Amino acid sequence: MLSNITNRRIEWGDCDPAGIVFNPNYFRWFDHATALLYEAAGWPKDAMLAHFSAAGCPVVETGATFRAPCRYGEEVTIETSILEVRRSSFLIGHVLRKGETICVEGKETRVWTIRDPSSQALKSAALPDELATRFREG
Amino acid sequence: MLSNITNRRIEWGDCDPAGIVFNPNYFRWFDHATALLYEAAGWPKDAMLAHFSAAGCPVVETGATFRAPCRYGEEVTIETSILEVRRSSFLIGHVLRKGETICVEGKETRVWTIRDPSSQALKSAALPDELATRFREG
Amino acid sequence: MLSNITNRRIEWGDCDPAGIVFNPNYFRWFDHATALLYEAAGWPKDAMLAHFSAAGCPVVETGATFRAPCRYGEEVTIETSILEVRRSSFLIGHVLRKGETICVEGKETRVWTIRDPSSQALKSAALPDELATRFREG
Amino acid sequence: MLSNITNRRIEWGDCDPAGIVFNPNYFRWFDHATALLYEAAGWPKDAMLAHFSAAGCPVVETGATFRAPCRYGEEVTIETSILEVRRSSFLIGHVLRKGETICVEGKETRVWTIRDPSSQALKSAALPDELATRFREG
Repeated sequence: MLSNITNRRIEWGDCDPAGIVFNPNYFRWFDHATALLYEAAGWPKDAMLAHFSAAGCPVVETGATFRAPCRYGEEVTIETSILEVRRSSFLIGHVLRKGETICVEGKETRVWTIRDPSSQALKSAALPDELATRFREG
Repeated sequence: MLSNITNRRIEWGDCDPAGIVFNPNYFRWFDHATALLYEAAGWPKDAMLAHFSAAGCPVVETGATFRAPCRYGEEVTIETSILEVRRSSFLIGHVLRKGETICVEGKETRVWTIRDPSSQALKSAALPDELATRFREG
Repeated sequence: MLSNITNRRIEWGDCDPAGIVFNPNYFRWFDHATALLYEAAGWPKDAMLAHFSAAGCPVVETGATFRAPCRYGEEVTIETSILEVRRSSFLIGHVLRKGETICVEGKETRVWTIRDPSSQALKSAALPDELATRFREG
Repeated sequence: MLSNITNRRIEWGDCDPAGIVFNPNYFRWFDHATALLYEAAGWPKDAMLAHFSAAGCPVVETGATFRAPCRYGEEVTIETSILEVRRSSFLIGHVLRKGETICVEGKETRVWTIRDPSSQALKSAALPDELATRFREG
């Protein structure tokens, strides 16, 4: 399965009065990590949508488990992987680590969305084979 | 079960280049909605922790399902409720609606945490009866 | 001059490890306060641009002075006023108060921008008289 | 004068419905760029405060001029420099560039703050010579 690792440095403004990362920021980082996963597949997000004439691949479900807090100044890695490729959606996993320690695990389901040629309405569609193969083979 | 409703107006800076709310912001709002739930129970967050000599009640798990997008200028309501009270944790649900339409449903698990009197380490602890009762009875 | 007052409650996620509002958030609030000022003038932002066939009124310069910190749970007011109406730009001031205490003062210059009918390029343009009058008379 | 350059990649969540960076985010980046400037001087922020027994160096005034918009996916550099060292405060400048183009220029004034040994109140104090010299000599 396709996978990519990115690094982040925890910034002062990412943290809350308890001195730890305010948890919505993890979802912000995961969103960017997904964009970088697409690039690792060879397509920046916009180029991917344009190449396949898609309208988007919005998140329909997301979740995270917080195992250990992160603090200002720490360096973390985010390992992002395709976990599952379905007909018209795919599942992405994120593992955020500080050294060897897993701090946060996240998951998101994204739906492949196109614009109906006649009605112009957005609707889900089967993932293009080329993309599904790339997601599966990494 | 304890429940509370709050309102938000979607701001320009909450939205992304697709013109819809950038999803980490929902988690930011849910976090605040939880703070307001504690207030509805009679205790602002700090007062609640102080009253029960607790160290915090951090989120250990969270997730959301996105059913319909929200856009700049829209007014939404967030209904926040205690869904379940366990021995040392509790489950909170959030339903974000635009009029009658459910746009986002969120859930979070929080752990009641105290500081060990001797070691000063943080550890989970049983919810105080008074709080558990208040959460259950609303 | 046109003026409007709005209220905000400081949220946990607005604050940093020092326990005070992380200063970029003030600019986020000022941006929203400006949107509310337009509404007080009778035009939600989109409607204002559409009504006058404008492309936008982006901030070209902004600044703030921080006089006193704000903390989680505090209620503040933001008083937003047109300070000056120029030919193709206008100056907005924000005063954020906690009770009677001025905590932050902000200023921003916005430029009235249209799309050139032939080249489609963005360019500044004279403020429409109707808008300039409304800004001046409040 | 002390100076440092850092890079950022513009993320999807940094941008607003107009497709450009929502301007409060520049202040977020400048805050982090200042933290990196301290590190370039040899002291991570916490270490710097600890080394000199200071309580903080909060921003009392900030401002920015926006010359050209930045968009999702772009790489920018931020050049951060000490502009002026005063008795108990210092002025920092930030220049954000996309290639050779200056997009944003920012400035911030920070005050050297200590805790009064007897009253424990925060008050401004003269910058330590070692720090002032390091800021001046780069």
